[in-house]
Amino acid sequence: MVLAPLQVTADALNYTWILVVSFLIFFMHAGFAMLEAGQVRSKNVANQLTKNLLTWSVGVTVFFLVGAGISSLVGGSGFASAASTSGTGWIDWLYGAVFAMTAATIVSGAVAGRAKLRAYITYTFLLAAVIYPVVTGVTWAGAYISFGGAAFTDFAGGMIVHGMGGIAGLTAAYVLGPRMGRYNEDGSVNVIPGHSLTFAVLGTLLLAFGWYGFNVGTSAIIGGDGAFLGDQLGRVAMTTTLAMACGAMGAGLMAWVRTGKVDTLYVANGLLAGLVGITAIPHTTSWWGAFVVGGLAGIQLPLVFGFVEKRLKIDDVCAVFPVHGSAGVLGTLLYPFVAAPGVVDSVLNAFVAQVIGVAVIAAWTILATGAIWAALKAVGQARVTPEHEQEGLDVSEHGVETYPEFGSGDSVVADGGMVSESVRADGGSKDD
Amino acid sequence: MVLAPLQVTADALNYTWILVVSFLIFFMHAGFAMLEAGQVRSKNVANQLTKNLLTWSVGVTVFFLVGAGISSLVGGSGFASAASTSGTGWIDWLYGAVFAMTAATIVSGAVAGRAKLRAYITYTFLLAAVIYPVVTGVTWAGAYISFGGAAFTDFAGGMIVHGMGGIAGLTAAYVLGPRMGRYNEDGSVNVIPGHSLTFAVLGTLLLAFGWYGFNVGTSAIIGGDGAFLGDQLGRVAMTTTLAMACGAMGAGLMAWVRTGKVDTLYVANGLLAGLVGITAIPHTTSWWGAFVVGGLAGIQLPLVFGFVEKRLKIDDVCAVFPVHGSAGVLGTLLYPFVAAPGVVDSVLNAFVAQVIGVAVIAAWTILATGAIWAALKAVGQARVTPEHEQEGLDVSEHGVETYPEFGSGDSVVADGGMVSESVRADGGSKDD
Amino acid sequence: MVLAPLQVTADALNYTWILVVSFLIFFMHAGFAMLEAGQVRSKNVANQLTKNLLTWSVGVTVFFLVGAGISSLVGGSGFASAASTSGTGWIDWLYGAVFAMTAATIVSGAVAGRAKLRAYITYTFLLAAVIYPVVTGVTWAGAYISFGGAAFTDFAGGMIVHGMGGIAGLTAAYVLGPRMGRYNEDGSVNVIPGHSLTFAVLGTLLLAFGWYGFNVGTSAIIGGDGAFLGDQLGRVAMTTTLAMACGAMGAGLMAWVRTGKVDTLYVANGLLAGLVGITAIPHTTSWWGAFVVGGLAGIQLPLVFGFVEKRLKIDDVCAVFPVHGSAGVLGTLLYPFVAAPGVVDSVLNAFVAQVIGVAVIAAWTILATGAIWAALKAVGQARVTPEHEQEGLDVSEHGVETYPEFGSGDSVVADGGMVSESVRADGGSKDD
Repeated sequence: MVLAPLQVTADALNYTWILVVSFLIFFMHAGFAMLEAGQVRSKNVANQLTKNLLTWSVGVTVFFLVGAGISSLVGGSGFASAASTSGTGWIDWLYGAVFAMTAATIVSGAVAGRAKLRAYITYTFLLAAVIYPVVTGVTWAGAYISFGGAAFTDFAGGMIVHGMGGIAGLTAAYVLGPRMGRYNEDGSVNVIPGHSLTFAVLGTLLLAFGWYGFNVGTSAIIGGDGAFLGDQLGRVAMTTTLAMACGAMGAGLMAWVRTGKVDTLYVANGLLAGLVGITAIPHTTSWWGAFVVGGLAGIQLPLVFGFVEKRLKIDDVCAVFPVHGSAGVLGTLLYPFVAAPGVVDSVLNAFVAQVIGVAVIAAWTILATGAIWAALKAVGQARVTPEHEQEGLDVSEHGVETYPEFGSGDSVVADGGMVSESVRADGGSKDD
Repeated sequence: MVLAPLQVTADALNYTWILVVSFLIFFMHAGFAMLEAGQVRSKNVANQLTKNLLTWSVGVTVFFLVGAGISSLVGGSGFASAASTSGTGWIDWLYGAVFAMTAATIVSGAVAGRAKLRAYITYTFLLAAVIYPVVTGVTWAGAYISFGGAAFTDFAGGMIVHGMGGIAGLTAAYVLGPRMGRYNEDGSVNVIPGHSLTFAVLGTLLLAFGWYGFNVGTSAIIGGDGAFLGDQLGRVAMTTTLAMACGAMGAGLMAWVRTGKVDTLYVANGLLAGLVGITAIPHTTSWWGAFVVGGLAGIQLPLVFGFVEKRLKIDDVCAVFPVHGSAGVLGTLLYPFVAAPGVVDSVLNAFVAQVIGVAVIAAWTILATGAIWAALKAVGQARVTPEHEQEGLDVSEHGVETYPEFGSGDSVVADGGMVSESVRADGGSKDD
Repeated sequence: MVLAPLQVTADALNYTWILVVSFLIFFMHAGFAMLEAGQVRSKNVANQLTKNLLTWSVGVTVFFLVGAGISSLVGGSGFASAASTSGTGWIDWLYGAVFAMTAATIVSGAVAGRAKLRAYITYTFLLAAVIYPVVTGVTWAGAYISFGGAAFTDFAGGMIVHGMGGIAGLTAAYVLGPRMGRYNEDGSVNVIPGHSLTFAVLGTLLLAFGWYGFNVGTSAIIGGDGAFLGDQLGRVAMTTTLAMACGAMGAGLMAWVRTGKVDTLYVANGLLAGLVGITAIPHTTSWWGAFVVGGLAGIQLPLVFGFVEKRLKIDDVCAVFPVHGSAGVLGTLLYPFVAAPGVVDSVLNAFVAQVIGVAVIAAWTILATGAIWAALKAVGQARVTPEHEQEGLDVSEHGVETYPEFGSGDSVVADGGMVSESVRADGGSKDD
């Protein structure tokens, strides 16, 4: 009887696992597309969907040709382009690419409803080529950040992917300015509800499904010593599940306390915030820590959303900062306080290392993102014209109407003639 | 060359499989959410979605702290809380949890459109803590039910999960009473169509995808003796596929025979009924038996639905009893009659064991569920006010409108009429 | 310590992989359902969804009883019915079935909006029983096609599945004739927009997710010699990803060049065309070849779509020929020109073998499909009546309305005007 070499078994299992979880993480683009489409006006849905499709398409191509090489360059291994690798090296590249594209697509939710398509694509190009690769080069690849012997810890990208994406989104939304009509002259706020909670919740659940790949998939199956890594897999699965659940409950509870009603979108986004919160630390957190991290990530959601909306007056359309940014920072910083016994030697050193990591990533992200969008703005390419914004970006940027038969009475006049001027516009004409 | 220990290979493969199928079964919540959302009125969609999100969130937390321990306690192993386990024990817990949450979420489809959110959450809490754990404690954990040497057989939860959920839903819907306007004073029936067949069919296909995890995933990959369990995996994959297909055809055929038209929703729900029908017995059923089980599960769907609607006059909104309840009972009872040769020693003993199992689970489920909803009703907390039911639960319970741009107020009339003023806002009033 | 036999490890890993990817490929039915539903009028959505559900249900049953046996018969191994196999043979059968059903379901998008349900089901029956099995019998099973020592190459069905399906769809749509109002008397074209870009893009992303199973899953994990097949897995994952991305960019670019706008549906369908393009050759194509194949598949999409619409005047509703047909042919023929070094001995021989394969499959598909639809047409069973087409197939064929609360009657007029009275019911008439 021929026996199986350990190396074959370990390679086969680990790489099959990486493929499966890469597919799951790719699937999160369906989740982001639905979540964001549901949260925008019906006149901007096709624009949001197109941005999602092109984020992946442009981003993954750029990451193949340039981004992966920049990451290894910054990490100290020289410019190793994905084009020059082969075989399992391409599996590793795909695995890196799906994380990179998650960071990229988060931004599109913040700048919805007014960013020019070419501006967004330009930014995505630079994010995939440089901004995100520098972050992973400094952290996962180079492991440069530590304090007193404690290394900066981010297991699956709570800060590196989600925190970075959320902060980038907030920065871009700030530079762009709010949508027309979002704020009154006296500074008071107008709510612009998304067009479909059903799509938003669908997106939430697609994302949660993919997230199991994101977190649990970051653990190998068989370790370098040939042992089955069941302890780590089990802990990550448990903390991911509990933090997600507590995020939904925390946000729903806050909404109920403040308004007497359980807002559906807060529950959904709270579930996601709980997932973001645990993503940096699912492999070290105790079970009660998962309750704490998820619960706090959910509770902070309505508070941070209100702060961004009312104090900062930034129009973060899909709430990407409270969901991905502040929740990612929160979980990353909580690392030493919620860890299972024996994980952390010095709580202080570990905490300082986390603070340094968060600060470095946030500073770089704000600077790079702010500079790019400011430059686009300076040349008049950041934002569509007021007329196009009124009309909706679907018509002006894409020449399509997402729902030609609904929501606009006589918009379909001949099976043959889509008449675009009838697209319902806020602030605009039709039957206003 | 280092060789792979069999134990490492078996553990790694079996636990990786459990993780993958647990993710698939979790994904069924996206399916239930879409299936149910599509089958309710647009004024109640956000309520249905919120219940789905909270079923998972509340339920999985309760099952972690209490439910899993109750199951092991009833099963005779003492109260083993999930909090006190570790490593792969948490993988096993997650695997149990996704089955438990499937049972829980089925109920929400039956009580749609009139149950108070707090009543539903209370019931979900108790289902996850006690009702479902007692069922699994008696069956999978304790294996107490047998007759003449034949043990009660339920491979993946055709009765334990789906039958239980469907019966619980029917019971809760009976206690709650029908939606306003569902029955006329003379006892005749009004149909209240769901708001989107597209979402309903999407949910059906998401569920079918997850169901492969539910059924095939219940088989281990490598057995205790170190052999590959390909025979069992293959049979389960085959019977699951054929029963699903025959369920859709059976229900579509019945609809066509009775009305001359192939009702889309019957085909979709028939596909699910076929899956439910085979879930108890996919590992033992012959290929022709899969045709029988799936076909009968589909055929009974329109008949049982009509019986519940017209004779019992129970308003089971999403048809959870014909899909999960009666189909689950049917498949469980058919076990000895459709089994592959050599599986069943005594058809009579096996059948009696199945009858006992079905009766025990049904009786416990009806009693526990009926008592809880009756108690909630007695204190006036089971059902929203008639005004809120008219208005829709989205506004009254959640303060949101699912589709603020579509379905303008006056186009929805019969069972309540959504009035949009309270929510509509992009800075203007409803009419601007 | 007991060691793992290589055979057990290889069987367990390879069959687990086949199961996972079969589930993923099955999931593509959700993608096709959404993609097609989004591209048809709201009055025909339920019809499209029902066809998708029944394609799978009828097709897989027929493929179990007949189709798989025909494939092995044509392939030279005698009629080996799936009913007579067992164990892992059923896993292999399911794996074959999900490919077969992909080919079948493509056709439904081409004949949308006017084919009779019974005609479509009849055709699906024959496709699953004979047409597709003959194609796989000649190619994958029998490997009859070669030239000068070079065998016809189609790794995962770029021609065998997608090309065949796209050509079948075009043929059926030609025989059926265009939808009413699609062409004016002077031959000019009317655009009939689909009812929801959101569902169309959702379907696109669900398909892309499943496609990773389709392509990467076609590679085994551990080869016959016991080695891990990481090189092949990595290359397939890389080329699939890049071709998909370049397909979306290519189609979007062409739309932008021609109209100044980035049409959302072209980007989505371009992404799919890129995937189709690479599906025959993901295991041999170089990284730059993936750019070429994907880019060309995307670029040809708007051109071929226009040619079919304006020159051939065939009403291919969901653009299945440019997406699956011409893109599949393109990728199959490009095989020797984009291959990695060392793969192809003689470019000429390889190219001729590919041309022969494409010609044989196309000729057989056109003949068989044309004959069946012509026969159905001859007996007056191919197409619904003009009245039913005006009214919409949802009402006439299925007795349902997909969105009873939206898009009320008078907002849709040109190609028939859905009149809701006949269906609208929650107990009352439309206006109560």
